[in-house]
Amino acid sequence: MKRIFEIDPWKIVTHELKPEDKRLQESMTSIGNEYMGMRGMFEENYSGDTHKGIYLGGVWYPDKTRVGWWKNGYPEYFGKVINAVDFTKVDIKLNGSSVDIAQDAFSDYELVLDMQKGLLTRSYIVEKDGQKFRLNFERFVSVAQKELYAAKITVENLSDRPANIEIRSYIDADVFNEDANYDEKFWNVLAENVAEDHSSLTAQTIPNNFGTPQFTVEMLAAHVTDLEAKPAETSEKYVANVFSGELAPGKTAELEKRVIVVTSRDYETREALSKAAKELSEKQAAFSFAELKEQQAAGWAKRWEKADVEIKGNAESQQGIRFNLYQLFSTYYGDDARLNIGPKGFTGEKYGGATYWDTEAFAVPLYLALADKSVTQNLLKYRFDQLAGAYHNAQQQGLKGALYPMVTFNGIECHNEWEITFEEIHRNGTIAYAIYNYTRYTGDEEYATHDGFDVLVGIARFWADRVHYSKRKEQYMIHGVTGPNEYENNINNNWYTNMLAKWCLNYTREVAGKVSAEKLAELDLTPAELAKWEEIADKMYLPEDQELGIFVQHDTFLDKDLTPVKDLPQDQLPLNQNWSWDKILRSPYIKQADVLQGIYYFVEDFTPEQKEKNFEFYEPLTVHESSLSPSIHSILAADLHKEDKAFEMYSRTARLDLDNYNNDTEDGLHITSMTGSWLAIVQGFAGMRVIDGQLEFAPFLPKEWEGYKFRINFRGRLLSIDVTKAGSTIKLLKGEPLTIKLNGKETELTVA
Amino acid sequence: MKRIFEIDPWKIVTHELKPEDKRLQESMTSIGNEYMGMRGMFEENYSGDTHKGIYLGGVWYPDKTRVGWWKNGYPEYFGKVINAVDFTKVDIKLNGSSVDIAQDAFSDYELVLDMQKGLLTRSYIVEKDGQKFRLNFERFVSVAQKELYAAKITVENLSDRPANIEIRSYIDADVFNEDANYDEKFWNVLAENVAEDHSSLTAQTIPNNFGTPQFTVEMLAAHVTDLEAKPAETSEKYVANVFSGELAPGKTAELEKRVIVVTSRDYETREALSKAAKELSEKQAAFSFAELKEQQAAGWAKRWEKADVEIKGNAESQQGIRFNLYQLFSTYYGDDARLNIGPKGFTGEKYGGATYWDTEAFAVPLYLALADKSVTQNLLKYRFDQLAGAYHNAQQQGLKGALYPMVTFNGIECHNEWEITFEEIHRNGTIAYAIYNYTRYTGDEEYATHDGFDVLVGIARFWADRVHYSKRKEQYMIHGVTGPNEYENNINNNWYTNMLAKWCLNYTREVAGKVSAEKLAELDLTPAELAKWEEIADKMYLPEDQELGIFVQHDTFLDKDLTPVKDLPQDQLPLNQNWSWDKILRSPYIKQADVLQGIYYFVEDFTPEQKEKNFEFYEPLTVHESSLSPSIHSILAADLHKEDKAFEMYSRTARLDLDNYNNDTEDGLHITSMTGSWLAIVQGFAGMRVIDGQLEFAPFLPKEWEGYKFRINFRGRLLSIDVTKAGSTIKLLKGEPLTIKLNGKETELTVA
Repeated sequence: MKRIFEIDPWKIVTHELKPEDKRLQESMTSIGNEYMGMRGMFEENYSGDTHKGIYLGGVWYPDKTRVGWWKNGYPEYFGKVINAVDFTKVDIKLNGSSVDIAQDAFSDYELVLDMQKGLLTRSYIVEKDGQKFRLNFERFVSVAQKELYAAKITVENLSDRPANIEIRSYIDADVFNEDANYDEKFWNVLAENVAEDHSSLTAQTIPNNFGTPQFTVEMLAAHVTDLEAKPAETSEKYVANVFSGELAPGKTAELEKRVIVVTSRDYETREALSKAAKELSEKQAAFSFAELKEQQAAGWAKRWEKADVEIKGNAESQQGIRFNLYQLFSTYYGDDARLNIGPKGFTGEKYGGATYWDTEAFAVPLYLALADKSVTQNLLKYRFDQLAGAYHNAQQQGLKGALYPMVTFNGIECHNEWEITFEEIHRNGTIAYAIYNYTRYTGDEEYATHDGFDVLVGIARFWADRVHYSKRKEQYMIHGVTGPNEYENNINNNWYTNMLAKWCLNYTREVAGKVSAEKLAELDLTPAELAKWEEIADKMYLPEDQELGIFVQHDTFLDKDLTPVKDLPQDQLPLNQNWSWDKILRSPYIKQADVLQGIYYFVEDFTPEQKEKNFEFYEPLTVHESSLSPSIHSILAADLHKEDKAFEMYSRTARLDLDNYNNDTEDGLHITSMTGSWLAIVQGFAGMRVIDGQLEFAPFLPKEWEGYKFRINFRGRLLSIDVTKAGSTIKLLKGEPLTIKLNGKETELTVA
Repeated sequence: MKRIFEIDPWKIVTHELKPEDKRLQESMTSIGNEYMGMRGMFEENYSGDTHKGIYLGGVWYPDKTRVGWWKNGYPEYFGKVINAVDFTKVDIKLNGSSVDIAQDAFSDYELVLDMQKGLLTRSYIVEKDGQKFRLNFERFVSVAQKELYAAKITVENLSDRPANIEIRSYIDADVFNEDANYDEKFWNVLAENVAEDHSSLTAQTIPNNFGTPQFTVEMLAAHVTDLEAKPAETSEKYVANVFSGELAPGKTAELEKRVIVVTSRDYETREALSKAAKELSEKQAAFSFAELKEQQAAGWAKRWEKADVEIKGNAESQQGIRFNLYQLFSTYYGDDARLNIGPKGFTGEKYGGATYWDTEAFAVPLYLALADKSVTQNLLKYRFDQLAGAYHNAQQQGLKGALYPMVTFNGIECHNEWEITFEEIHRNGTIAYAIYNYTRYTGDEEYATHDGFDVLVGIARFWADRVHYSKRKEQYMIHGVTGPNEYENNINNNWYTNMLAKWCLNYTREVAGKVSAEKLAELDLTPAELAKWEEIADKMYLPEDQELGIFVQHDTFLDKDLTPVKDLPQDQLPLNQNWSWDKILRSPYIKQADVLQGIYYFVEDFTPEQKEKNFEFYEPLTVHESSLSPSIHSILAADLHKEDKAFEMYSRTARLDLDNYNNDTEDGLHITSMTGSWLAIVQGFAGMRVIDGQLEFAPFLPKEWEGYKFRINFRGRLLSIDVTKAGSTIKLLKGEPLTIKLNGKETELTVA
C-alpha cells in the first residue's frame, strides 16, 4: 500500500513529485472520454523514468504471438491498443534550455485531477540559470466533442530579468509500446502538413499478416498564443509548430493547443479524414478555452447527476468511489458499440486494452444502474457483432458452437496460455449471464429473443459439445478447465463452470420458448437438440460434499492441505510474488471468488445455510490476489449479515489504485475492478436485487460511516437511496411510480 | 512414413537427391564421436534448403528464455549446444563457377554412410558449361583421435577439355542457430591465422548474463593437396586457404582437409589451446588419409565386437538396429563424464542438445549391457556432479532436497513450461532408478553407497517435502504433476509418480542400511528422518481400481470418455498434429507408457494378472506419439507372451528414423529413442532380466525373422545369445564361468 495523493472529495491532488512515484502519478491522473485517453505523463520534456501512453479506443495492432513452446490451437496474434501518435508533446525552452524537472530545480509542485469537471491541471516553479518561472498546464479530452484534446500552457516570469521563451508543439509518430512482443514500432507516417500556427500528421499502423485492418489516424493541432510563430518544422516522424518571444519580468506567456484526432474507424478515405479534421478544428476554434472547459464540466455534471455516490463520515471512501466511477466513465460510456472496457482502460498497456469477461461479470451490473440502458445494449451488441469470431474459436478447439474469447478485439481469441485460452471457458457462461442480467434488470426481452438468442444458442451448442459423458458416474462432466480461480489450472468439474454450463442450457431452452418459429428455424434449432440440452442439464455433475454442506470447487479440491490463509506465514503473501507457480497451483488458495462467484450470480436461488457454509469454507482460503475478488465477497458477506467482513472486503476494492494496494498501479489502473466498490455499496451494503422484476433493497450502514447516498436508474426511473443512522430513505426522482421492496416490505414510490 | 535410403546391412545408401528430402538425408547421415558431430550437410556450396549443423559436445550457450507469459520460478535461460564454427566448408570453383547442385545439372549421385567403418562418402557428376566432372567426398570424425575431423575431396575431369579448378577451404564463424530464441549469432572471433596450406581460427561464445562459462574454441585446418596453394584469405568472420590448378581431361585433383578442434573445456588458456591444436595437427600429419581411415574402422570394429546385433531373415530390421546403435555410439560412448546424451545427439538443434531423463530411463540399460561399466559410471557421475544444481531447482520451487532438471547442461533447470518444468517431477525417480539399475546389473554397490547415496538422499528429501497429507483420505498424496504421459498435465496422484516416489524413499532407506556411519553423519541423516520416510512410503496413496484390476493413471482418469484409439477416425492421428492441445489433454489418449513404464521398471514385482490387466487396459488407449513409447510396450507384450504385439511395437521403433515414421526426422534423429529397438530385442524378445544378481533369458523368435543374435557384457564377461528356429544358444565368449537362467532353468556357462 502506498498513498501518494491527498484526500479530497472531488479531486486527486498531490504537491510532491518523487521520481520513483512518477509512473504511479501518471496512472492515477489518467484522463479519457471512451474515444481516446491518456496517462498523466507530462506534455513537456521529462528525462526521468516515465511511461508516456496515449491510446485511441479501437485502434489496435495484431502483435505476433510470442511463446516459449507452441501448442496446437494457439492464436497467431495478440491484439493490443497501441500507443498513439503523441499529439501532447511540447518542448519549452527558457533562454535556450529545455524545461526538464527531472534535471532542473523546481518547487511549488501541484498536480490535480478534478473529477467533477474532467480536468487535469499541473503547475510548478522551475529555476533556470537563477531565474524562476511558474509553469501551468491544463488539459482534457472532451466529453462534448470526442475528437478534441485541449491543453493550455502558461509560463510566468517570476524573476526580475527578461527571458527568452520558445515552445515547440509536436505531433510525433516516433512512439513505442512498452509491451510490443518484438520491439517493433507500430506507426508509419503517411503525410505531414505544417503552417505557421497549426500542423497535421497522418499515420498508419504498420502492415500485419493476419488480415486485420490497418488503421489510419490524422491529428490536426491548432494553436492559440500570444507568442510569435516561427517557421514550423518537419522530419520523417514528426511535425512541430514553434512559438517564441521575450518574456518580461512578471509577464506570462500562453499557448493553447487543440488537437483534433480522427481515425479510419469513422472515416473511410484519407480525404474524408482530412476534411473531418479540418471541419472539427474550425468548429472548435469558435470557442474560447474557458468555453471548452465549461462544456467539459457540463458533460461530466450530467454523468454525475445520474451516478454520484455520497459517503458521509469517511473522506477516503468518498474520494475512492468517485475516483472509480470517474475512471470507469472515462474508459467507457457506451457511445460506440465497437468499443469495450479494457482492464486498464487508457491508463496502461498491460492486457493490451482488449476485452475480457470482466465486462459482463463486473461492469454490466454497474452500467445497467448508472447509465441509460443503451449503454448496456451496446456492450451486448459488441458480443453479438463478434459471434462469428466465437464460432471460429470453438472450431479452433475442434468444438461446435461459439466460444467467446478470453481476450479479444474482434471476437477472435488473442491469448496464448493453454490453461487460459483453451480452458478458462467459464467466460462463455458470463456472456450469456449478461443477457439474462440485462433482461432481468430492464424487463426488456427484445434482445434476448432476437439477436441475443443467436448468442445464447451458440453458447449452448458449445457447452453441449464440450461436456462428455462419464459411463462410470453416469453423468455429464466437464474436464480440463480453469475456473475463475486462476490459481488452479486444468481441473475437472469446476463447480462454477459446470453450474454455469447447466444454467446456460436451461436458460437458452427457456428463452427458446419465447422466440418466434422463424428464429428457431433460422438457427436450425430442433426439439431434438433442445431435448438433448435438457438431458445434459439434468445429468450435469455438480460436485458437492454433503458432510461439509458445500459445493466442491472441483473433483479433488478436498484432498488438498486446507490450511487457512491466516495460518500461513504472512511474509509469504501475496503468494503470486513469493511462491513458485506450481506451489500456488497445488495449494488450496483461491485468487478470486470461484464457487462464491456462482453463488453471487444467482444469490436468490440459494438457501442462507448454503450461502453461509460455502462462504465460511471458501473465504478463509481466498487470498484475493485478483482485484476482482473482494467485491464479490463483500456482497455475499453483506447478504449473510457479516457486516464487518463486508466492509473489510469493500475496503480492499474501494481505494485499490488510490492506495496502490496491489503494488502495481504504476502499470495502469484496475479499471474493470473499479466497479467493485460500487457493487459492494449498492448490491452489498444496500442489498439491491431485482427479483421477479421487482427492485429490492435491504440496506445496512457500515459502522465506519455516518451515511451513504446513491442514485440508480431503473426501467426509466431515477431513484435516490439514502442510508443514514436513522434509517433508509428511497426516493423516486424521475419517472413513473414504482413499487419496490425495502427490507422485505413493499413500498410504492412516486415522484415527490 | 518415408523411406529414402536403400536397404543394406551395414550401409545407409541412396542414389537420389530430391531437394525436399535434403534435410532428411542430412539427419540420417550424421556422424559423430561423442566429442563432436555433425549433420550430413554438404561441405561444398549448396544454395537449396539445407540445415548445416556441426556441434561440439558440451559447448553450449545459455539462451535467454523466451516466454509468452512469465510464471514464478521459470529459469532464466535455455541452454543449447550451439552450431559450431563451420570447419567443413569448402567452395569448389570449376572454370570460375562454384559447384552448387541445387543449380547445376548433376547425375550419378551417391551418398553412403558406412556404419561399420564410421565413414561418410558422397559422389556425383556435375556439369559445368558442357563439361562434366566427377566429385567425390569422404569424411569422418575420428574415434581414434577425438579432436580430428578429416575429409577428402577429389575432382575428376570427365570431359575432353582442360578445366581450371579452385578450391577454397574455410573455417567460418558466421553461423547461426535455427532455434536461437532471439536470432542472435553466438560466436565472436578472437584470432585468425593463415599460412599457405593451413589456417586457424579462434572463436569464443558471446557473453551471457547468467554466470555460465564462455567457451573458446580453436580450429586448425591443415591441407594435403596436389593443387597449388594461393594466398590465403581472411575476413572478420572467416579464414580460407585457396588452392587452384589446371585439370587436364581425365585427370583428378585431390584435397585433404584435416581439422583439429580444441576447446576451453579441455585447455584453460588460449596458449594451451593453440599449443594443443598444433601438436595434435602435427601428430596426425604423420598418417596418410588411408591410415586415418583404417584407425577409424578399427575403432568402430572394437565397438561392434561388443555390441553387434545380427538379425536373420529381415534386411530392414538388420539395417535398423545397426543404424540405431551406430548413431547412439556416435553420440555417446562414455569417454567424458561431463557429457551426456542429447535427445537429438549431434543431428539437430531441437531439444538443445541438453540432458533429459531419457538417459537414465532408456540409455543406461543399453550401455550397461553393450559397453564397459565405466560408461554407465560416467553417466551416473554426471548427475552426481550436478547435485548442487538439483538442490537449487528444488529451492526454486520452495522445496527441500534435490530435484533433477527436465532439461539441463549444468544441473540447473532450463525448461520453461510450468506443466513440465515444475510438474514432470517423476524424472527425479528415474535418476534414482538408474543407480538401482546399475547396482543390480553390475553387482557393484560402491556407487550407491558412496557418491550415489548423496544423490539418493537428495531425491528422497525432495519427495518427502513434495508430498502432502490428505486429512480426508488419511494418506500422503502428490498433487499437480505431469506423468510420463505428457498428454495430461497437472494431474493429481499419478500412479507412476507416486509409486516411484514411494520406491525412492524405500530404496534410499535400504541403501542407508549399507552406508557408513560417517556417510550418514555427513548427510545429517537421522533415524527420525528415516522413520518419516517410512511413514510416508507406507501411507503413500496409489490409485487402484479393484473392479478393473488396474492401477489408475491418476485420480480422475476413469471418468474420461475411454473410447479406444482404434475407434477414433484414423485421419485424426497423430493427435498432436490434428487436435488442439486442450482436446488432447482431456482425452484418455496416452502419448507414452505411464502406468506401464512403472510396471516395466519393476516387471518382476508384479503378477502376470496385474501386468495383463494393466496392459490390456492402457495399451489400447496409447497413441505412441513419443518415440520412447513403443519399446516399453514391446517388452511388456513379450513378457505377456503377446508375441505379435511385441513385434508390432518393436517395428515402430526399429526404423523410426530410417523410415521417418514420425515425419520429423529432418529436424534430427531420435537418438535416445534409438535404444528402443535394442531394448525390445534384448529385454523383450530375449526376455533378459537380472533378478537377484542372476542373468535370465526367456527368448522367443518373432515369426517375421529367421533368427537373431546379440552380445552383451555382464559383470566382466562377454556373452553371445543366438536365437533361431531351432532354439536358443547362449555362449560365454570371455570371462569367468557364470550361471544364468534360460527359460527358467539354471545353466552354467564357461568359455568354450
